[in-house]
Amino acid sequence: MAKANVQPPKGTRDYLPHSVRQRRYAIGIIEQVYEAHGFEPLETPALERLEALTGKYGDEGDQLMFRVLLRGQPLVKGIERAAQHIAEPGALVTGRSGQTAPGAASLLADMGLRYDLTVPLARAHAANASKLPQIFKRYQTQPVWRADTPGKGRYREFFQCDLDVVGSASPVVEAEVAEAGCECLVRLGFTDFKLRTNHRGVLRAIVDRAGLPAEQEINAIAALDKLDKVGASGVDAELASRGIAEGPRKALLKLITGGVTLDRVREFLSGHVEGEKAVAELQEVFDLCQHTAAAQYMVFDVSLARGLGYYTGCIFEFSTSRFGGSIGGGGRYDGLIGMFTGKSVPACGLSLGLERLLLLMEEAQLFPTDLGAIDVLMATTAGQSPGRALALAGQLRAAGLSVSLSPKSEKPGKLRKAAAERQAAFAVWWEEGHVHYWQRSTNKIARNLSAEQAGAEVLQAAGLSAAAAD
Amino acid sequence: MAKANVQPPKGTRDYLPHSVRQRRYAIGIIEQVYEAHGFEPLETPALERLEALTGKYGDEGDQLMFRVLLRGQPLVKGIERAAQHIAEPGALVTGRSGQTAPGAASLLADMGLRYDLTVPLARAHAANASKLPQIFKRYQTQPVWRADTPGKGRYREFFQCDLDVVGSASPVVEAEVAEAGCECLVRLGFTDFKLRTNHRGVLRAIVDRAGLPAEQEINAIAALDKLDKVGASGVDAELASRGIAEGPRKALLKLITGGVTLDRVREFLSGHVEGEKAVAELQEVFDLCQHTAAAQYMVFDVSLARGLGYYTGCIFEFSTSRFGGSIGGGGRYDGLIGMFTGKSVPACGLSLGLERLLLLMEEAQLFPTDLGAIDVLMATTAGQSPGRALALAGQLRAAGLSVSLSPKSEKPGKLRKAAAERQAAFAVWWEEGHVHYWQRSTNKIARNLSAEQAGAEVLQAAGLSAAAAD
Repeated sequence: MAKANVQPPKGTRDYLPHSVRQRRYAIGIIEQVYEAHGFEPLETPALERLEALTGKYGDEGDQLMFRVLLRGQPLVKGIERAAQHIAEPGALVTGRSGQTAPGAASLLADMGLRYDLTVPLARAHAANASKLPQIFKRYQTQPVWRADTPGKGRYREFFQCDLDVVGSASPVVEAEVAEAGCECLVRLGFTDFKLRTNHRGVLRAIVDRAGLPAEQEINAIAALDKLDKVGASGVDAELASRGIAEGPRKALLKLITGGVTLDRVREFLSGHVEGEKAVAELQEVFDLCQHTAAAQYMVFDVSLARGLGYYTGCIFEFSTSRFGGSIGGGGRYDGLIGMFTGKSVPACGLSLGLERLLLLMEEAQLFPTDLGAIDVLMATTAGQSPGRALALAGQLRAAGLSVSLSPKSEKPGKLRKAAAERQAAFAVWWEEGHVHYWQRSTNKIARNLSAEQAGAEVLQAAGLSAAAAD
Repeated sequence: MAKANVQPPKGTRDYLPHSVRQRRYAIGIIEQVYEAHGFEPLETPALERLEALTGKYGDEGDQLMFRVLLRGQPLVKGIERAAQHIAEPGALVTGRSGQTAPGAASLLADMGLRYDLTVPLARAHAANASKLPQIFKRYQTQPVWRADTPGKGRYREFFQCDLDVVGSASPVVEAEVAEAGCECLVRLGFTDFKLRTNHRGVLRAIVDRAGLPAEQEINAIAALDKLDKVGASGVDAELASRGIAEGPRKALLKLITGGVTLDRVREFLSGHVEGEKAVAELQEVFDLCQHTAAAQYMVFDVSLARGLGYYTGCIFEFSTSRFGGSIGGGGRYDGLIGMFTGKSVPACGLSLGLERLLLLMEEAQLFPTDLGAIDVLMATTAGQSPGRALALAGQLRAAGLSVSLSPKSEKPGKLRKAAAERQAAFAVWWEEGHVHYWQRSTNKIARNLSAEQAGAEVLQAAGLSAAAAD
């Protein structure tokens, strides 16, 4: 037979046991922190109706979305219509990337794979509003799928760990979300991270006060976003290259040269109604966070923009010195949750980038070394009835130990080696009707015991007794 | 705007917090049992290459598989080829259901959604063989997707909880797998279940010994499979309707009338080489299971068939009196894991039907009533600075309590009601600069405390001290 390609699809991964355990360890800590803050778990289907997904993530999102092919008779009709569609001149090329128009794809698909956890939250919130509390504090840790070009820490199937409060405009939400995010990172073992903080209204007002027309806001903010990489003069050059006039450039350059504190921004925006309001909101978040463990990580960063179409208030981004990009971020987005109902629903949240966190944790050796350790590795020996091994394994498990019974007879030396590799505290084996066991911590072997004796000794050494089963 | 359809796609579900917690409770117990038996977690991508999936589940599987649409230029080519394909007469209708030929679908898709956890195990085992132990004891709890007609307990996205041992032909594996399955059900709270057990070789030999030609094996086994529903005479009628001659029918009827013990089957198969071998294998599994907690649930059931193309040895099925169908099952399948490599790899496992188990657990009220309970629900009162509430919440969390801080000011009565609904042990609120708290267990309110006092008292009542944070 032809050799089959047994690799997982491009950009996806098989998680072998050690990797699953590392992921579960990190997700477990994150979810514990979220739960300790009173957030509740939500899970939504991997599949969403295409109509719920398309148009929500811009051109690029529509291109990168995995769509699910129609089935049965609708597929036949879809193929006919799609064939007509691609025959029309110019129908195929839209969007920056010159990819096939979502038009043809939409004729052949009825569902798409979840692209993030925010649109599903908005949809599920609309579908279940009557069953959810008025203020819904939810977290969600599930995979999402994007047909992106894979790279280091960038996959086509990856997990997001989202935390959101839906239904409250109070700045207490920002403080709680910021605190929970910081606590996750601290408990995962990170020490050298910052929570860069800004406010979309502050950015808008700065651009406006600098004398830029509203339509240049996007350009100016994109240039400001590069401040920490290229410095103030770099931003100025960037602004010039984006066609921004000298007057506004000078005003912006004056503001961003040197450390830009919130006080300097407040002065700059003095008398600007929306700007003063935004600064006051941001100041309130900083003041509230002084009462939380987030305070020591938060810094005001006037250059933080976090994309463009999405956020309406405070914005956050977690960064570490070890990793160029962001390891998580979020903010207030009061326009999004109501997208399906037309109602205005305030919301604020953050998302931790699990895949990047896992890479950093691996590099910095932040995982416990005993993930997946078992208590006992047991094997029968050739010619011995395995029934007694099954019985002893059952007895040890009933008392609370994890016992892996090898279905193969193993030589004692090999079994001990396997036990050490599996980080088992004990190796137990049978020889000529007697039980022998090796204890890893002492590296000693006890020989020629009855099953009862061996079981009692192993339990005692493990700090348990058979009675613990009750 | 037009009212959007905000329901999840047909056959899929939004899991609201209570439902997520119930699912996690059940999955947590199942995974704990699997871990205690030394099994290790594997996770594979939701997406698989189409070539790895198609042809593995029969015609029906190919029809029910969700396929992922090609993207970009390959999609354009695919549409052109698919349009040609459906233009060919007869190209569309294949398979029993008269659905669109997978042929056309395969021209438009490059991946499919995971249809079960066994083919991905075989693929991942082939891809990672050098990194996995020679005998790989793995469990996998992940969703799978099938475009089936939804019904009670039947969904298009549903979870499987699989347990398999790859690489060993020892009957110890059957005993361990059976025991782990029984222990899961017991620990989930089930008492009235059976583990029906049979052997594919026994079934084949019975049919052969009854004088049926090999090509009627499928018919005879399908009829036998109905024994517990229609009785021996019903099976006889079924056999007749399937064109089976009187002689073989009489032989089978004689065997299955009255309780069919393994001893009766052994007699029936006396002198039948393959039959005697299969009976001996099955007997050995029963004997080994006598040393495990599975013994009390196992019954030999000559009518158990569990599909046809898949199993090679011992087969299992869990059933309860409460639910018509199976709640899980498995067996030995020595031909499947090697499908991608052409090597013969023995394997045996079982799969628990999580969705059905959850339905039964809900009906029988087997879930703990305090799932998702938190320790403290806290609210600020209008006009009070929430900073102190944030600080107190942080202090209580640092000592180990879960605290949900409402960002909204709440009236004390309403807060206590919400706390009772959320199963919070305490409600804490501010009035005129003082802290008040209500303890659910005593239904008493302590009033006018300082934050320090209130924090200390709540921690003490919860059996903790602030020092526990260290």
